Amino acid sequence: MAAELSPEKLSEIHRPTLDQALDAIRTRAYWSPHPEHPKAYGTEGLAGSLGAAEGKAAFDAVLNTRLDLGQPGTDGWTGGEISPYGPELGVEYPHADPDVLLPAMSAAMGSWRAAGPETRALVCLEILARISARTHELAHAVMHTSGQAFVMAFQAGGPHAQDRGLEAVAYAFEEQTRTPRSADWSKPQGKRDPLRLHKSYTAAGRGISLLIGCNTFPTWNGYPGLFASLATGNPVLVKPHPRAVLPLALTVQLAREVLTQAGFDPNLVAMAAERPGEGIAKTLAVRPEVKIIDYTGSTAFGDWLETNARQAQVYTEKAGVNTIVVDSTDDYRGMLSNLAFSLSLYSGQMCTTPQNILIPRDGITTDSGAKTYEEVVTDIAAAVNGLLGDDARANGLLGALVNPDVKARLEGASALGEVALASRTVVNPDFPEAVVRTPVLVKLDGAESDDDAPYLSECFGPVSFAVAVGSSGEALDLLRRTIREKGAMTVGAYTTSPEVERAVEDVCFEESAQLSLNLTGGVYVNQTAAFSDFHGSGGNPAANAALCDGAFVSNRFRVVEVRRQA
Amino acid sequence: MAAELSPEKLSEIHRPTLDQALDAIRTRAYWSPHPEHPKAYGTEGLAGSLGAAEGKAAFDAVLNTRLDLGQPGTDGWTGGEISPYGPELGVEYPHADPDVLLPAMSAAMGSWRAAGPETRALVCLEILARISARTHELAHAVMHTSGQAFVMAFQAGGPHAQDRGLEAVAYAFEEQTRTPRSADWSKPQGKRDPLRLHKSYTAAGRGISLLIGCNTFPTWNGYPGLFASLATGNPVLVKPHPRAVLPLALTVQLAREVLTQAGFDPNLVAMAAERPGEGIAKTLAVRPEVKIIDYTGSTAFGDWLETNARQAQVYTEKAGVNTIVVDSTDDYRGMLSNLAFSLSLYSGQMCTTPQNILIPRDGITTDSGAKTYEEVVTDIAAAVNGLLGDDARANGLLGALVNPDVKARLEGASALGEVALASRTVVNPDFPEAVVRTPVLVKLDGAESDDDAPYLSECFGPVSFAVAVGSSGEALDLLRRTIREKGAMTVGAYTTSPEVERAVEDVCFEESAQLSLNLTGGVYVNQTAAFSDFHGSGGNPAANAALCDGAFVSNRFRVVEVRRQA
Repeated sequence: MAAELSPEKLSEIHRPTLDQALDAIRTRAYWSPHPEHPKAYGTEGLAGSLGAAEGKAAFDAVLNTRLDLGQPGTDGWTGGEISPYGPELGVEYPHADPDVLLPAMSAAMGSWRAAGPETRALVCLEILARISARTHELAHAVMHTSGQAFVMAFQAGGPHAQDRGLEAVAYAFEEQTRTPRSADWSKPQGKRDPLRLHKSYTAAGRGISLLIGCNTFPTWNGYPGLFASLATGNPVLVKPHPRAVLPLALTVQLAREVLTQAGFDPNLVAMAAERPGEGIAKTLAVRPEVKIIDYTGSTAFGDWLETNARQAQVYTEKAGVNTIVVDSTDDYRGMLSNLAFSLSLYSGQMCTTPQNILIPRDGITTDSGAKTYEEVVTDIAAAVNGLLGDDARANGLLGALVNPDVKARLEGASALGEVALASRTVVNPDFPEAVVRTPVLVKLDGAESDDDAPYLSECFGPVSFAVAVGSSGEALDLLRRTIREKGAMTVGAYTTSPEVERAVEDVCFEESAQLSLNLTGGVYVNQTAAFSDFHGSGGNPAANAALCDGAFVSNRFRVVEVRRQA
Repeated sequence: MAAELSPEKLSEIHRPTLDQALDAIRTRAYWSPHPEHPKAYGTEGLAGSLGAAEGKAAFDAVLNTRLDLGQPGTDGWTGGEISPYGPELGVEYPHADPDVLLPAMSAAMGSWRAAGPETRALVCLEILARISARTHELAHAVMHTSGQAFVMAFQAGGPHAQDRGLEAVAYAFEEQTRTPRSADWSKPQGKRDPLRLHKSYTAAGRGISLLIGCNTFPTWNGYPGLFASLATGNPVLVKPHPRAVLPLALTVQLAREVLTQAGFDPNLVAMAAERPGEGIAKTLAVRPEVKIIDYTGSTAFGDWLETNARQAQVYTEKAGVNTIVVDSTDDYRGMLSNLAFSLSLYSGQMCTTPQNILIPRDGITTDSGAKTYEEVVTDIAAAVNGLLGDDARANGLLGALVNPDVKARLEGASALGEVALASRTVVNPDFPEAVVRTPVLVKLDGAESDDDAPYLSECFGPVSFAVAVGSSGEALDLLRRTIREKGAMTVGAYTTSPEVERAVEDVCFEESAQLSLNLTGGVYVNQTAAFSDFHGSGGNPAANAALCDGAFVSNRFRVVEVRRQA
């Protein structure tokens, strides 16, 4: 029986997009095939996509149902997600017996390997297209698991996540096709006949790839590993965070649908939801069939995986401490508003949110004149207050706190130092149960740089520290120490001095951290754009891989050569 | 002061070679810029190269001297190499204080990073060119440390090793230049002005790269890691095997000379020779400055490195068990002579030498009629005897046993089963102290497949097992188990059956092993050609990396992005 989605048809639909993606990762100019605006979807927008009302209806329809993915080895049902906005989702997911599911997934590898890199890439692009068409539905799923406000859940959980998935497919395709499918080799032997061999080169996946999802960005942080592994020939088992199952369950459902229609075994993508407290990630991570693991989450569990899952390639994004160095600026107002937005977005619950703002104790020079440390801190606080003064706008930026741990850290922050900006409770009229809080800014002294200094640990959530330092030189020393010991996903700096700029760059080159300089407009240090920006460096303790580069894909497959006498 | 070797001059000399290497790794056709024939060197050959007599004289001149590399932190002298052919080399090498040497190496990184990928590649090519010009000298150094016969030491230790180094440079250059040096990014914002950023991308080395050399192939196994790390911006500390220091010491000397002439800090390449029994590899491997380790050697120490040197990227080539599956052949004589050569070359002391020859108990079909298991074994033994019957030829193929452990394993092999081919002592008239032995072939039964079966462990040296199996299907089961549990650098198979061929391929795809099919001519399963063949797969326990592919280079640097508002 012919597949509904033949390689030819997939090529006709998606090859131009793949080529554009390949071009984008080489030029790193702006590009995205996934519209950011919610109005770009629906009957008058992207072909076949759900509009706002349809997406909401689709989301509502899945609530309080059993989501049967048709997987082998389903031995029960589990669920229990509660939205950070209040409602119980009531969705039940299959619970898998790994002794049945994993062998079924492994058995799917052969024909997927034989399909070759291009067909695998095109199938992945069709999966991404189906996901894109249901962006509105997925936006609600991301919002009600992560606590992100709707627009952010839509953009970061939708087009931006899809971009990162596509970027991973492009890297995977390029990496696998650096070596040709075959070569004729002829080595001269002087007067004798040359030695001749015919050689074939096959990109072979390594085994089952385990995706351990996170609570805050289930799709954005999940898609790169999922698609990088699938595109390189590996079955992918998705183990979602127990509080953020739905976005990945819908993703798995769409992937299985596409794989079937393209004539492949749907078990190339499957899900392992867990019962409360079951902790199946530890069990799955050390299964011999699991050869690749992608993980986003705590340093403790990331370290556990790296130490114990030795049979697998382990890609981890863990905790880090992000720093902003404030040396001087020629756009003081722009700096303040840019920082205020960065601190507020999603209540600081991004792995890229700045935590430590290093400000010279003697103040800085600006286009508005010299500013003391106190003035800078006061002005940042005022900028945040200005940004979040309106409750509707505050709700749209902050979203809800994702879990009680974040709330506890926020509440404990005021004991760490003098509070320059107190957190305030915002009421969300649509979801009165949502825990919505503005960020707190606490003043600390960088001279007390013992290991217990609060600014030397990640305080995940809407907590930032205005750290007084003796000089910009001291700021750079602290920056270096923080990156080296604690890791950093992002570094920002404001300076008008070429010398300071060069010195910050050198620290980032030497400690391997991504740097944003003098951002004062509509781009924020905590945001990266696929195809152009690297997310993390992979070279400091915050993450052992960057999204996305050659290193993220090159060890997910091996090239097996077969040579024959010609 | 201008450098003697400017980037422009280096580009003029070496850029065409780099481009050819880049082309070769993409097409994987035959290519090498390093002549294989000893006569291609000297006044009438390769420009500036030492001829046979000059090379021998240069080697003789370095014996019994102190080789001062001019390194910082030299706190004494060490040496003590004894040639497997008998003579003491008498060369003394600097002993380094890591607390002085390592900081000096780290301090060299900044200008090396700033030089950029192309200049780094071109400097590496100049180092390789200097090495190439001294191939005759290095051949003697490799011969008198590894025990390889001269022609093999010349080819494998000279041009083939240089090819692998150049291949690594090409991969490193390509990987670093996949991302442009800078990009202008402009994101449309509807009716508002677009968001604009200027972005720079810098390939930044990770830190000191430690090369832990091996005894048998100091240059061939050492150059890929050395040049991959140097080309990606890392200083390289060479810790040679205590019995094979000289080839790498001469290499380090040439590298330091070139670096100086090109205006860089010579401490980008340095050596750490050890005192007898000092075991400095363990100390160096866990130094925080060491971020990359390349190692070839025992599984025990490779596993130790992977477990303990967690601050570093660790690339290991360890023990493995290589298999030949004999199912059927249409060139029985060709098969026998090809196998005889493979078993004999360098007395089986290659990580790629076949160990287990799996032969159906009921025999095989051939172009010379059906052959029983006994006949095949007898004929392989006769082929080896025929190949090595002449002592001069035997000496030229076998070389000397590299150390007493190999001799002990050879002597113990006859107790493991019925000896089909006994080892014989060959006298080397030039070096009467050399321990020269022909290979032993022992008959074993594949039905006794418990974990202690001799054929399930690596027996490094001139020992092979003719393992009787029930069928080719059983052979494939044993092949799969052997690769999965013990690893394999090479797999060979002889078959005229398309079904068996397909089945062997599938095992190799699934277990990630490199396969040679029906080799009956002048290419041997234990040889691979740079730019075309992968050495190892990186996907089974014998090695966690292949020589050479994207994965071998992509994690030796990180891309640090700096973005600025435009």
